[in-house]
Amino acid sequence: MAKVSVIGSGTWGTALAVLLFSNGHEVILWSALEEEVKEISQRRSHRNLPGVKIPEGILVTGDLEEACKERDVLVLSVPSVYTRSTASRMKSYVPKGQIIVNVAKGIEESTLMTLTEQIAEELPQADAAVLSGPSHAEEVSRGLPTTCVVGASSKKTAEYLQNLFMSQVFRVYTSPDILGIELGGALKNVIALAAGIADGLGYGDNTKAALITRGIVEITRLGVAMGGKAETFSGLSGIGDLIVTCASMHSRNRRAGILIGQGKTMQEAMDEVNMVVEGVYSAKAALALSRKFYIAMPIVEQVNAVLFDGKTPGEAVKELMLRDKRIESNTLPWEK
Amino acid sequence: MAKVSVIGSGTWGTALAVLLFSNGHEVILWSALEEEVKEISQRRSHRNLPGVKIPEGILVTGDLEEACKERDVLVLSVPSVYTRSTASRMKSYVPKGQIIVNVAKGIEESTLMTLTEQIAEELPQADAAVLSGPSHAEEVSRGLPTTCVVGASSKKTAEYLQNLFMSQVFRVYTSPDILGIELGGALKNVIALAAGIADGLGYGDNTKAALITRGIVEITRLGVAMGGKAETFSGLSGIGDLIVTCASMHSRNRRAGILIGQGKTMQEAMDEVNMVVEGVYSAKAALALSRKFYIAMPIVEQVNAVLFDGKTPGEAVKELMLRDKRIESNTLPWEK
Repeated sequence: MAKVSVIGSGTWGTALAVLLFSNGHEVILWSALEEEVKEISQRRSHRNLPGVKIPEGILVTGDLEEACKERDVLVLSVPSVYTRSTASRMKSYVPKGQIIVNVAKGIEESTLMTLTEQIAEELPQADAAVLSGPSHAEEVSRGLPTTCVVGASSKKTAEYLQNLFMSQVFRVYTSPDILGIELGGALKNVIALAAGIADGLGYGDNTKAALITRGIVEITRLGVAMGGKAETFSGLSGIGDLIVTCASMHSRNRRAGILIGQGKTMQEAMDEVNMVVEGVYSAKAALALSRKFYIAMPIVEQVNAVLFDGKTPGEAVKELMLRDKRIESNTLPWEK
Repeated sequence: MAKVSVIGSGTWGTALAVLLFSNGHEVILWSALEEEVKEISQRRSHRNLPGVKIPEGILVTGDLEEACKERDVLVLSVPSVYTRSTASRMKSYVPKGQIIVNVAKGIEESTLMTLTEQIAEELPQADAAVLSGPSHAEEVSRGLPTTCVVGASSKKTAEYLQNLFMSQVFRVYTSPDILGIELGGALKNVIALAAGIADGLGYGDNTKAALITRGIVEITRLGVAMGGKAETFSGLSGIGDLIVTCASMHSRNRRAGILIGQGKTMQEAMDEVNMVVEGVYSAKAALALSRKFYIAMPIVEQVNAVLFDGKTPGEAVKELMLRDKRIESNTLPWEK
């Protein structure tokens, strides 16, 4: 049994807290909002996870020091825009070697840093790891079979976390490629937007499969140039997470894309979805990274043109279909 | 403009004949069934492609010699179980260097040979190539944007075929990896069955994405051991085709899987789907190949146990979730 705190009580943090508790660990769930602490501790439910009971044994707190002190593992599940500031607030409570598992996804717009890189900058004393994969919180909290991958810089930490999270319905693989895992999670939302746009244009399964497959090729090229491993982008945190995002109506990115494909502007789509559409920000970050690392990313470019330059989705698709004829994979040579 | 014959008038052959004709080529469409020749040439439509007009300019014939003589390209689109016998019948009409593009998918049960290998055995004088990818015939015939990959042993043939098929709505990539392309297409149906079974059990998007992602990992391992390239299994004919198959209700394999997941036996499911369920045969072939090449394929094994040994789908899933804890990709080492 381990002492674990989950920092951030959104749907994913809450679902993981319930999973860890049912795996037999001692669990604290922290929220930044006093109101949410009260609501969850009294009602023992989360407004966005209907029907899921949050066991009495999980301590809910708004006290960050209480949540951080003397814990075997801290699971960091705040929205990506709060990762740096939350890590910074944790500074004085985190001892040397503290295992911190980031479970959010994103890239910082101003620095183009991943979340674990930000955590390492704010908390250099910590042993920062990541958990990612095709895992809608709604389904995990209902006990539907789910797989994830844990990335850590040492095999020992990776295996420790694998044992911590793994259950009969939650299978965990290990990996040394923290960077690749994080890039896949952060960049998939651009492709989910593109897939949504294709759906909105009335295209079929062929088009969507093409965008997913060629999309992960772009992400892989960029990710490998940045130091990630190709195998990771073919894995659960890469193509796996992209598939689940593009298939699901849970995804805000896909829903916003559908509206844009139907002729709405980016702003109209954002207003109608009425929540943060992460893909709009990661589209910008992906374009900036593709220029920084000199990687051709035609889908990312067209998504940016549609979002920010007023290009029509139909024109963008036509351009993607008719650009230069290509070899599928540049690394495979012909003998003749 | 090229002279092309499409040998086999199923939905995929017919959709490709219409595509090639609209690309400006001279097209002959051959059917083995006299009745079908009559029906298509008179009605100018295909019973399984409602609303699709087959242009008058396409010559429909039942004469194999007429279809094969003096053509720049022969597209072989007969069902996989007829590939060898049809190739054998074509023997005396096929000159040296004849380009033949196989567009069917399958593995011969008795020999474990791919379709192109069978073609090469029956027609050693031909230049055998393959076209594959996420491409429902129904969607291609309606002009929805679609991508495929052409594999050929020479770059020249690959680029020639790329130019032949490519249009504003049909984008073609090239590849030297014929074997990898064919293995992906043949083995995906086992995973589609597994994905259907998960749907039938009432599982969600997380489970399906896990099966697709770990399924392609198994196929890649086997395919690489057999001489295919890892990049191909991450491409359109690998993960791309698998995604489209697992997402679609067009797929007989997925539909059969759903029925099995709901508690029907394999035979009951086959009877209800009332058509050949390719995945049932490729499950056997995949298991035989995994033993021949000593490759662990846990999903393939569990599908076989459910299909042929009376294991319940629920037990099979439990076993997959709880087997030995693993590293996601064996090739990535830890530094510490």
